Amino acid sequence: MIKICKTIDEVRKEVKQYRKEGLSVGLVPTMGYLHEGHKSLIDKAVAENDIIIVSDFVNPTQFGPNEDLADYPRDLEKDAMLCDNAKVDILFAPKPEEMYASNGCTFVTVDGLTNELCGKSRPIHFRGVATVVSKLFNIVTPDRAYFGEKDAQQLAVIRRMVKDLNFNIEIIGCPIVREEDGLAKSSRNKYLNEEERLEAIVLHRALVLGKEAVAGGEADASKVKELIVDMINSESLSKIDYVEIVDAETIQPVSIIEGPILCALAVSFGNTRLIDNFSYDNEEK
Amino acid sequence: MIKICKTIDEVRKEVKQYRKEGLSVGLVPTMGYLHEGHKSLIDKAVAENDIIIVSDFVNPTQFGPNEDLADYPRDLEKDAMLCDNAKVDILFAPKPEEMYASNGCTFVTVDGLTNELCGKSRPIHFRGVATVVSKLFNIVTPDRAYFGEKDAQQLAVIRRMVKDLNFNIEIIGCPIVREEDGLAKSSRNKYLNEEERLEAIVLHRALVLGKEAVAGGEADASKVKELIVDMINSESLSKIDYVEIVDAETIQPVSIIEGPILCALAVSFGNTRLIDNFSYDNEEK
Repeated sequence: MIKICKTIDEVRKEVKQYRKEGLSVGLVPTMGYLHEGHKSLIDKAVAENDIIIVSDFVNPTQFGPNEDLADYPRDLEKDAMLCDNAKVDILFAPKPEEMYASNGCTFVTVDGLTNELCGKSRPIHFRGVATVVSKLFNIVTPDRAYFGEKDAQQLAVIRRMVKDLNFNIEIIGCPIVREEDGLAKSSRNKYLNEEERLEAIVLHRALVLGKEAVAGGEADASKVKELIVDMINSESLSKIDYVEIVDAETIQPVSIIEGPILCALAVSFGNTRLIDNFSYDNEEK
Repeated sequence: MIKICKTIDEVRKEVKQYRKEGLSVGLVPTMGYLHEGHKSLIDKAVAENDIIIVSDFVNPTQFGPNEDLADYPRDLEKDAMLCDNAKVDILFAPKPEEMYASNGCTFVTVDGLTNELCGKSRPIHFRGVATVVSKLFNIVTPDRAYFGEKDAQQLAVIRRMVKDLNFNIEIIGCPIVREEDGLAKSSRNKYLNEEERLEAIVLHRALVLGKEAVAGGEADASKVKELIVDMINSESLSKIDYVEIVDAETIQPVSIIEGPILCALAVSFGNTRLIDNFSYDNEEK
């Protein structure tokens, strides 16, 4: 039976006991409203660790003033059921005031990796992510932590942070989970109305087109981007935030595609901003 | 017999073994060139922990471009002897390239506490301190870490960082250790020529005068500062960087002395910049 912890002390106490028993701990950090994408992270964590802790926290410091913090969907009861069924041991669901002291002023920043892609339109986003993930790592002290590849820039930021700050934690990225029609699973998909939902399929289709071009030998990043942009713009409700091809590790734009790259996009349909991406490594061909 | 570790992996391996044996670990982070001040930290750590790790690392990221990084005194052999005599188990003395990857870009900042005092004249200093201490905490994962009260702002920054990032580590501040004539012990004292060394005694004398005024009921911070500044200025070689009275926790300047305060100064004699301070809490009278 799953245990729901609301305080940091409770989680620490549990983890301390697990450690005494020599058990390994896997952490799946989430903002809740869990879907099949999260479930795939949990399943991987279950396969690789003795104890699974899922954190369920809509982190206010990674939302900008005009973003959807207040509206972000929440359903702790449903999350707890999903976790329980998936053999999660602890669901850590703190309140914001448990996580942040009123006079807190410490931030973790990952400069360089956060100026492009989502970092451009969401300037404080990755500072908030790196800070809250550092806190979760220090609270849970997991052996392994699991992140989805849908948030590819986030994954790159966390890998870099773990190396730079010497966290003794293995970071495991897990493939994007998609709806049957190809739309990447996301808690934000529920915002889409019927028409937007239909049009949003274009994101995956455009990325598949782009990936095929790259795999076929197209090395000019601007040409690949053009293919993707044109297809997305053919849908009347789409509004592109960015379509970008960057170095997979440094998240810096590339013009010629040679080493491992990440092709990422953010596109709004109505008020709903969706992200998706593909990675490609010539070496793996 | 003390063990000298040069790599992160070596330290981790040792700590892992200690943990298996259920031993507690105390960390004393230093920049080496150890003196009686460091020794007092080590002695306290020895009294409170099973295993003592001293880190000996002149951290480049906390020095500004015009500061004394290249000249900072080093003597690993002497440090190792002092540590061995003091019952230290491990001396962790990594090279800069062991601590910092060439493409590292993650920083820990403690905003608000670092704008005053030494943060004013050393703008990147505390970012470097907070980052390297985070790294050391993640490498060593100590139960307790020991810092001198001479670096009072550093101690406040680290306490704040530990709270904000949820490090599960007890931070222990240790009183300033002084030469017989009152000069605070510092690795930088060796830079002073004979005349400067004589004049530098004024710092402690001025702080004693200031503390007596506060203890006697003087609540006007500017009057206390004036007493201190005047006495220091009476020495011909002194050049004041700052004399400031701040809230002991927030490190923000106060004009009326009521709660716990820190009175801190930085003064140069020739090319040598010295710091010293006293704390005062009305409640403790």
